[in-house]
Amino acid sequence: MNRHTSTWIRDAVNTEIEMSSRIRLARNIKGVPFTHMLEDDEDLEALGGLVSKMLPGYSLASLDGLSVQDRALLVEKHLISPNFAKRGTRVFINGDEDISIMLGEEDHIRIQALGTNTTLEALYDKAGAVDDTLEEKIEYAFDEQYGYLTACPTNIGTGMRASVMLHLPALAATNKIQRFHNNLTRFGFTLRGIYGEGSEPLGSVYQLSNQVTLGFEERVIINNLSELKNRLIEEERMARQHLMTLDTLDAVNRSLGILQHAYKLSLKEASMHLSNVKLGLDLSYIELENFNFQEWFQLIQPAFVKERVNTEEYDSPGIAAESARAALMRELLGGK
Amino acid sequence: MNRHTSTWIRDAVNTEIEMSSRIRLARNIKGVPFTHMLEDDEDLEALGGLVSKMLPGYSLASLDGLSVQDRALLVEKHLISPNFAKRGTRVFINGDEDISIMLGEEDHIRIQALGTNTTLEALYDKAGAVDDTLEEKIEYAFDEQYGYLTACPTNIGTGMRASVMLHLPALAATNKIQRFHNNLTRFGFTLRGIYGEGSEPLGSVYQLSNQVTLGFEERVIINNLSELKNRLIEEERMARQHLMTLDTLDAVNRSLGILQHAYKLSLKEASMHLSNVKLGLDLSYIELENFNFQEWFQLIQPAFVKERVNTEEYDSPGIAAESARAALMRELLGGK
Repeated sequence: MNRHTSTWIRDAVNTEIEMSSRIRLARNIKGVPFTHMLEDDEDLEALGGLVSKMLPGYSLASLDGLSVQDRALLVEKHLISPNFAKRGTRVFINGDEDISIMLGEEDHIRIQALGTNTTLEALYDKAGAVDDTLEEKIEYAFDEQYGYLTACPTNIGTGMRASVMLHLPALAATNKIQRFHNNLTRFGFTLRGIYGEGSEPLGSVYQLSNQVTLGFEERVIINNLSELKNRLIEEERMARQHLMTLDTLDAVNRSLGILQHAYKLSLKEASMHLSNVKLGLDLSYIELENFNFQEWFQLIQPAFVKERVNTEEYDSPGIAAESARAALMRELLGGK
Repeated sequence: MNRHTSTWIRDAVNTEIEMSSRIRLARNIKGVPFTHMLEDDEDLEALGGLVSKMLPGYSLASLDGLSVQDRALLVEKHLISPNFAKRGTRVFINGDEDISIMLGEEDHIRIQALGTNTTLEALYDKAGAVDDTLEEKIEYAFDEQYGYLTACPTNIGTGMRASVMLHLPALAATNKIQRFHNNLTRFGFTLRGIYGEGSEPLGSVYQLSNQVTLGFEERVIINNLSELKNRLIEEERMARQHLMTLDTLDAVNRSLGILQHAYKLSLKEASMHLSNVKLGLDLSYIELENFNFQEWFQLIQPAFVKERVNTEEYDSPGIAAESARAALMRELLGGK
């Protein structure tokens, strides 16, 4: 298993506001009970064998063979869901780590395509190509009237969830984000923290995604989402104009100074400072080469930090992690 | 008038805990009413003429000829008292700016000698030499039983105030400073902020001085004060041992990062960060060349900062000052 960040995120140096996108398709096998009703692993094992043959370029990881830490790394890389890390069985990942197929998530099959500097359309084509390949040998649970049948009714229809990760520090600072969230919900979309449902937004990074999967074609949902995304980006740009103040210049530079010098950083604080530095770069208040907001934001997450911890040196794992996170920031930002 | 810091403080690079010392002698002319009882300037004018002749190497400044800003600079350089800046008449300052003679402070004559990397004894000799010179031509108000007579009874006797400036961040952090203050008061000494009576201590810099001037010879007071000073330094050293933690390592380095990067700094905040960085250097948690705590602590004071302000650029003088203070720190600490 690759314990480093994925290629696609390492190359994501110059993104602004729009960070990355993701398409996820939920599919189930006709005539087989949904995952939570399965009495044994037989059906998923058979499915795993089939997918292995159909997708020869993918590496297969059995969740049984992965430690809690390995699973957490996959979650932070967005290759598996937090839910799948707890209860999943097998995951297929391509070489570039921008496509994953989870077997035995809430649905039998979940196909994900993700990436940066790309479009939802392109990702839908990618995920769709995998979907088409699998459909050659697998008969999906499909209803002429409703579409794809899924374990949870919120996914019935297209079975598609499209998401865009957005860096919205100005909207977050001015508390406009809550108003947008409320409006979006009424149109069947949602705006929430980047690491899955219910998580608190860190570093002003939000995930815009569709909630409604039924009654619209995939490309219609993607179009609507893209329009909302552009609207949000435009609003963020306008809000940033009002943030062009001495206070912001001061705050973003202090954040840089703290990241370059601190010896202890909680996830929450590091996220905030990284977000500030990114804003400072976007506003040309700061100049920095090789700053990679997306990758570094991933590297400060708990599992990635744990990879660097020498627990014996410290009183508690918490302190060891905060210390390792600070050392990483100093190293990446050229502090001492 | 020299608008820069004095030579003696610019050379004070390597002081640790003990910063600078000062001796002040209060004298009055026999047969002349105390300053606040004087009806006109005649006596002080005559005195000024006399001192000019006796101390030819000194430059004389008439307070009338100085702007509010110039007077404030002299206060921050410790060459005149805040009280004298408001109501004084003439001040004589030697070339090294380590001796000043105020005419028409609370007392007719106040002789001050100050410096760093020196002893109270040496400063007492310096001030005493000036005192002896003046006494050749001036008959002081002196009582065989009490000693020198002064406008305020708290100065009667020796007329001497000896002070040592101490950097006590560890005692301040552990709140031990208040206990010391209470004990010292009982022995006729006091511990307070550096810029004169009643001022809030900034940057954990305290002034230890004698309150009692009557009943003890000068050298006895100086000896007692030196012993107390050594005791405080010892206590500060011990308290620092308990501060050798990751939290302190983190705090002092963050302070360095903030001073190197901030674009707005209040006096209070800049003092605190400078104090932290100085502590970090003393604990070998930070390495920095040419760091001059004493001089920089003076340079962040309001009048010194005002020298650097371009008021037209900013909405308010307060913001302009905070911005200029931050720019100074970035410049001195090699930030951007």
